Amino acid sequence: MTLDTSSLPADSAGRRAGRAGRAGRSPALPQKPFRQPRLPYRPVDAISADELEAIHDASLTVLEEIGMDFLHEEARAILKRAGADVVPGSPRVRLDRGLIGEALKTCPPEFTLHARNPEHNVRFGGNWVAFAQMASAPNCSDLDAGRRPGNQADFRKAVKLAQSFNIIHLTGGYPLEPVDLHASIRHLECLRDFAILTDKVFHCYSLGRERNLDGIEIARIARGITSEQLEREPSILSIINSSSPLRLDTPMLQGIIEMSSRNQVIVMTPFTLAGAMAPVTVAGALVQQNAEALAGIAFTQLVRPGAPVVYGGFTSNVDMRSGAPAFGTPEYMKACLVGGQLARRYNLPYRTSNTCAANAVDAQAAYESIFSLWGAIMGGGNFIKHAAGWMEGGLTFSFEKFMVDVDTLQMVAEFLTPLAVDEDSLALEAMRDVGPGGHYFGTPHTQARYRDAFYAPLISDWRNFETWQEAGAPTAVEKANRLWQEVLSRYEPPPIDPAIAEEIDAYVQRRIAEGGAPTDF
Amino acid sequence: MTLDTSSLPADSAGRRAGRAGRAGRSPALPQKPFRQPRLPYRPVDAISADELEAIHDASLTVLEEIGMDFLHEEARAILKRAGADVVPGSPRVRLDRGLIGEALKTCPPEFTLHARNPEHNVRFGGNWVAFAQMASAPNCSDLDAGRRPGNQADFRKAVKLAQSFNIIHLTGGYPLEPVDLHASIRHLECLRDFAILTDKVFHCYSLGRERNLDGIEIARIARGITSEQLEREPSILSIINSSSPLRLDTPMLQGIIEMSSRNQVIVMTPFTLAGAMAPVTVAGALVQQNAEALAGIAFTQLVRPGAPVVYGGFTSNVDMRSGAPAFGTPEYMKACLVGGQLARRYNLPYRTSNTCAANAVDAQAAYESIFSLWGAIMGGGNFIKHAAGWMEGGLTFSFEKFMVDVDTLQMVAEFLTPLAVDEDSLALEAMRDVGPGGHYFGTPHTQARYRDAFYAPLISDWRNFETWQEAGAPTAVEKANRLWQEVLSRYEPPPIDPAIAEEIDAYVQRRIAEGGAPTDF
Repeated sequence: MTLDTSSLPADSAGRRAGRAGRAGRSPALPQKPFRQPRLPYRPVDAISADELEAIHDASLTVLEEIGMDFLHEEARAILKRAGADVVPGSPRVRLDRGLIGEALKTCPPEFTLHARNPEHNVRFGGNWVAFAQMASAPNCSDLDAGRRPGNQADFRKAVKLAQSFNIIHLTGGYPLEPVDLHASIRHLECLRDFAILTDKVFHCYSLGRERNLDGIEIARIARGITSEQLEREPSILSIINSSSPLRLDTPMLQGIIEMSSRNQVIVMTPFTLAGAMAPVTVAGALVQQNAEALAGIAFTQLVRPGAPVVYGGFTSNVDMRSGAPAFGTPEYMKACLVGGQLARRYNLPYRTSNTCAANAVDAQAAYESIFSLWGAIMGGGNFIKHAAGWMEGGLTFSFEKFMVDVDTLQMVAEFLTPLAVDEDSLALEAMRDVGPGGHYFGTPHTQARYRDAFYAPLISDWRNFETWQEAGAPTAVEKANRLWQEVLSRYEPPPIDPAIAEEIDAYVQRRIAEGGAPTDF
Repeated sequence: MTLDTSSLPADSAGRRAGRAGRAGRSPALPQKPFRQPRLPYRPVDAISADELEAIHDASLTVLEEIGMDFLHEEARAILKRAGADVVPGSPRVRLDRGLIGEALKTCPPEFTLHARNPEHNVRFGGNWVAFAQMASAPNCSDLDAGRRPGNQADFRKAVKLAQSFNIIHLTGGYPLEPVDLHASIRHLECLRDFAILTDKVFHCYSLGRERNLDGIEIARIARGITSEQLEREPSILSIINSSSPLRLDTPMLQGIIEMSSRNQVIVMTPFTLAGAMAPVTVAGALVQQNAEALAGIAFTQLVRPGAPVVYGGFTSNVDMRSGAPAFGTPEYMKACLVGGQLARRYNLPYRTSNTCAANAVDAQAAYESIFSLWGAIMGGGNFIKHAAGWMEGGLTFSFEKFMVDVDTLQMVAEFLTPLAVDEDSLALEAMRDVGPGGHYFGTPHTQARYRDAFYAPLISDWRNFETWQEAGAPTAVEKANRLWQEVLSRYEPPPIDPAIAEEIDAYVQRRIAEGGAPTDF
């Protein structure tokens, strides 16, 4: 059999014919195996049970009395059949608390999202944590070439990096938007790259039903399964953002219909910026977040009871002087914690994000990101989107930030690994050996354990000042610049059955020949 | 009266005669009033109650069976009188669990440390949080002049900055060591600066009993109170570090005797680096931390039952490739959480730190510091030492890092401010006004609240990329450089009664004339 590889991502071609990939392992950078962390602590409750009920109750009042605009006739018909108050000749729909309550009963509290490599399946819900690469940046940047619009070459580099690190559990959308590809066929090129260059779970955008259907079909082909099996085993996800305040637009509602009807994963995430598209008070913004999230979540269950769905929270504030969105702020952290309380109240998996507003990979980028993670992790976040690469409030994917985030995510995973407390680790015998005034460097207890005792960072420079200065005083961003390029140079595509690769390619070729998805331009 | 001010810090002199200071407020940088945050959440338990008991029990076994070296004869006499097993002709002392248990009963769970300005009193214990400036760096640095040995001019700049920001609740030692002052009189110069340039609580080193006595006396004079009142109202603190493993040296034990006998505050902090001065396992290092802490804490109560004492934790790991200490690591975070569990088990205030190992104020400095704060705050830390300025594992006080830390500490304080959830903040009426598809920028609800709705950062740059680039693409450290100099230029010393200033100065002058504290050189 001769495989036509001309249209496939360049460096995957020669390697698909049987060569064993070493996916997810770079010989240069030892890393732990692919494994999802679990939160071993009780998540932190930021508000009391009564306050939580007040937010819950107010959001139900919003849905009952103000209602939401559902900008899609088919969706309104579904809602009407379910008993919602659909205002004739208007997109406005009012949903009573009985309808919401019934719909919440059928949501699965936990589920698995299946990757083409089963070792990369992702658990959602419970105390599982999953980190997804940053998504949807219109720009990208690195120290060498600066900031530039997203493009296919950079897209592929970013996707290969997502595959290369085991701490990146899935991709959550295009890390950067390849705007050099026409919008009608962009999703086809990108979905093929996701399916070939990675063997991890990927995402399809709800921007017209064709894009969902192409995503679902490519996920099915990549796994080599039937449509029936795909319906039993969710294999692709789509993020649904409401058009705040209180609207769900046509492509998003179509996305829910296509995805949920096939039992694929919906992540329902209002983007409620306090002071802009939501009330200026964090509590008010959370009421609106919750109203929009519950409306979308309920709609998934009207489409198909039991369809997997995630409660998404993305409430932050704006800079009230300029209107610019802010991230990783104290308000963002509190909203993360309360979002988790709400998701737990409904027994739903919870999605949060790792964000910052910085323009450079400097101290600000780092502290805003770690504050974000603090809120996300202690809030019980299950699905941490934008976990690696996010800059500028989402406008740029930075290759160096990706690399720094990989290191900090690995640290978070290590932080979440329960501390061993047993006779061996309590080390009484070692203390008897060493005694007062001794040292532990050379003891058998130390010698037997030191290699793996502690997390070994990728970026952090622990040399003393003099040695560091002699080495040219490299900052974290400079080390990150070197590392991502080193890892990229060692990338090897994950193994794939050539017949499957060919089928994916044929599907994409055919759909491109058909013109892809319709656009207005 | 003519006041001789020749020996006082230069710019305090002209202002002491009645001029009203505007301490703690810079017109350039609006800030919230001096106020200690309180942890509104339950601290995070990293290990189970059984595991906690295992660490507790192992540490008592260490004290009973291995014992500690108390390198001070008077201390051993006190221990012997209390029933400890003092090995004749040896520094070794074995302490049984009964003795430790009895001593723990008399420790106060909460207390107030009194400043010369009562508005700057600091609460220790409960859910109170206090941030102290970095302490004890041999070097200092800023972007303009680079890294240099500590000196009096920089010391005074750092102390003035501590006074200038309300988020710095106290100083915790010399932010940087003025090595241009001879060791015999250095403490006198520094104590005078603390007492005059700030009106916040300060610290004296336990490096020979004269230094403790001078510190206590200067704290008394500064407050204008009697020795009896000082004994009722703790007014100065001293950090006690054990010489790990399992030793307390002469000056530290003298420090406990001088401070505790006068009811002043001891912060008992073993510095247990896993893999170096402590077992390579974090649990083992915590056993040792706990043994050393309990021994020192018990000793304070043998000196004077009821003397105020803080449980200090400072367990981190080393880089096992180089032996260099590491900070803000996952192991550090876990040790912070468990340290808090131990302190709560004994009903003692808990001291932790805000640390990093970075050589530059870059992303590493920021993520290691915020990881430290994450562990410290969620672990229930009451007294966060080294909260602002710490670099290089403690070897350098950075003026820019201080400024970045001030901003992040303010964010932590805002994060810890409980979220308002009430009819007004739930904003149902605002949502009714705006409705689906509207926006909140101009609504009355927003207009009435936007000015104070959100934390306004000092450092974070939220401008969009283009505007930021046109402004010269400043990074966080560059903005920090400008800000600390601006604040310093507006520093005004806090008001002080001229008679008290004169008395402090006379005391210091006399003690300097006497030769200060004895040194070996």
